Amino acid sequence: MVNIHRATVEATPNIALVKYWGKRDEKLILPQEGSVSATMDGQLKTRTTVIFSDKLPKDEVILNNKTLEGKDLEETLKQINVIREKAGKQDFKVKIVSINCFPTAAGFASSASGFAALAVAATQALEMDMDTKELSILSRLGSGSACRSVLGGFVEWKKGEKDDGSDSYAVQLAPASHWPEFRNVIAIVDAGKKKTSSRAGMKQTIATSVLYPTRLDSLPALISSVKAAIAEKDLPSLLTMVMRESNNMHAVMLDTWPPIMYLNDTSREIIYAIHEYNELCGRVRAGYTFDAGPNAHIYTVEEHVSDIREMLEKIDGVKKTMVCKLGDGPATLENESDHLIDAEGNARGHYFDDVKSELVVRD
Amino acid sequence: MVNIHRATVEATPNIALVKYWGKRDEKLILPQEGSVSATMDGQLKTRTTVIFSDKLPKDEVILNNKTLEGKDLEETLKQINVIREKAGKQDFKVKIVSINCFPTAAGFASSASGFAALAVAATQALEMDMDTKELSILSRLGSGSACRSVLGGFVEWKKGEKDDGSDSYAVQLAPASHWPEFRNVIAIVDAGKKKTSSRAGMKQTIATSVLYPTRLDSLPALISSVKAAIAEKDLPSLLTMVMRESNNMHAVMLDTWPPIMYLNDTSREIIYAIHEYNELCGRVRAGYTFDAGPNAHIYTVEEHVSDIREMLEKIDGVKKTMVCKLGDGPATLENESDHLIDAEGNARGHYFDDVKSELVVRD
Repeated sequence: MVNIHRATVEATPNIALVKYWGKRDEKLILPQEGSVSATMDGQLKTRTTVIFSDKLPKDEVILNNKTLEGKDLEETLKQINVIREKAGKQDFKVKIVSINCFPTAAGFASSASGFAALAVAATQALEMDMDTKELSILSRLGSGSACRSVLGGFVEWKKGEKDDGSDSYAVQLAPASHWPEFRNVIAIVDAGKKKTSSRAGMKQTIATSVLYPTRLDSLPALISSVKAAIAEKDLPSLLTMVMRESNNMHAVMLDTWPPIMYLNDTSREIIYAIHEYNELCGRVRAGYTFDAGPNAHIYTVEEHVSDIREMLEKIDGVKKTMVCKLGDGPATLENESDHLIDAEGNARGHYFDDVKSELVVRD
Repeated sequence: MVNIHRATVEATPNIALVKYWGKRDEKLILPQEGSVSATMDGQLKTRTTVIFSDKLPKDEVILNNKTLEGKDLEETLKQINVIREKAGKQDFKVKIVSINCFPTAAGFASSASGFAALAVAATQALEMDMDTKELSILSRLGSGSACRSVLGGFVEWKKGEKDDGSDSYAVQLAPASHWPEFRNVIAIVDAGKKKTSSRAGMKQTIATSVLYPTRLDSLPALISSVKAAIAEKDLPSLLTMVMRESNNMHAVMLDTWPPIMYLNDTSREIIYAIHEYNELCGRVRAGYTFDAGPNAHIYTVEEHVSDIREMLEKIDGVKKTMVCKLGDGPATLENESDHLIDAEGNARGHYFDDVKSELVVRD
């Protein structure tokens, strides 16, 4: 195929230390308040290849070997349409092939790594000269927290003030090298049957929770303190804030009408176990945080990982554990064999099996 | 025995519609805000016999066939000492025999019915002329929520403003006869191993929860609305407020440091089931509320009881259900055979077996 513009990028999830819960603008995905996260290493990742060409018959998105349709396709193209317009390439069709390399059925949100990989790959394919601020804003249009996955290490998503969202983007607080011993011990927990999507949940919280405005008021000071603790590598202080912040978010979820409940009995056992462990240590060495699901992310440093892991694996309902370091953010893959679409514009159907065996973290 | 002053009273628990969580005075047990409850009928009850005499060798309290010692004895005598002083009978010793007729290991708090029965029985034994306001204040000294069990039907505990607690007591909003169809379907749930006492929990919440002051601010308006809904017998509006209020209290508990978590997976299943049931009905016919434990109290009216009971009994982890009506408050028992202490001042040791078979609700 002539006139093919192609790029392949891998991006990784980020796990928030101060959570994003609530939009002030649904369309531009502008948050009610700022948030802080740590970008994970490549044990969990999304690989995405994007090609643009005026020879393609239509826009096409293949995610995890399945062609997207309807609303799912539309959501993905929202970001692409903005990129095409910025590049003046409205006549180009896009083909996207993407795979998530996550433990099967682990209940991880892949939207952050997915939309970050897409923004970086699409703009690279069109050879657009983008800084991380612009990439962050583009990623945000796909999924709010994706704006934090365009950077490695510790990241802050600035709330911004403007209506057009041009000042609502992520900045790096410290690279992964700032704290090489920092770890996230993930406990993958059997999910219950009930699930509120975080998008719908956030809207309900803003509309109904009596306690939510107080949470918002408390966040700017908390973010300052969290940033200081990261800068000073003050583990006990950072982890205490992270745990309290997670509890606070799940509290406003419970105060939402109808209530949103992501923590289950296993999550509670993990919470109790971490409190006991810290008490036993006489200092805070482990700090839990939970996103919109029962999986626990236990932040700590390398020397405590094996103790924590052993403790978690004894808890009923913990299916498996894995350990992530801080990651460096999105990476561009240049080898021909790494692309998920070949030079002729064909999705590598046969490729998936190879890729899977290499990339998918199995249970 | 000459000079014996004896009375026997039965009192029942109350289950709050707007919860009491937090003291402004630890010693006098004055609450941070007002609360509203419904007093239950005699399916769950405490029977207490009190005798005063200057011939008794010492103060003695026998609860559920066990003699209290140390701190437990001291807590019980706090109320008695105030009563003796008011009556000018400081030279009298007291003997108290009390039994709780509650399902075994159901995890119900018996302090409300216990301290209400004690206040009423003790003042009657000394032939003190007490109105419900005074009885409520005396009960409050034993346990905060006990002040609401001295009255039947729907009850409000007025926060009060004074430092001496003389204006912090319960008043009846409506007698049981106001809403004869009103029911509490209780789901008794397997309790987990972890438990924070509500006394300690309240203190932690006040000291640490970011969200707690906002809860307090919202309560006066909520109490007004709840009172209006009771007066109008507006079931959907009342139950919606009751459910949201329960969630709000458990939210501030979760926001407490360290977090307090009383709801377990069974409680969550019950919450989801009630929401589904109400949706299916197209109106709110059932409303859950949870105290400091996983047991659910589902308020409704008689015609929906069998549907709700059937639904609850299908949920894994629900051990049994029972149904309470509104009760009339404490009752004085006059028959010689009803007293737990005989006319000679002896605890009826042999009596317990008889009483148990009659009174104890078995699993």
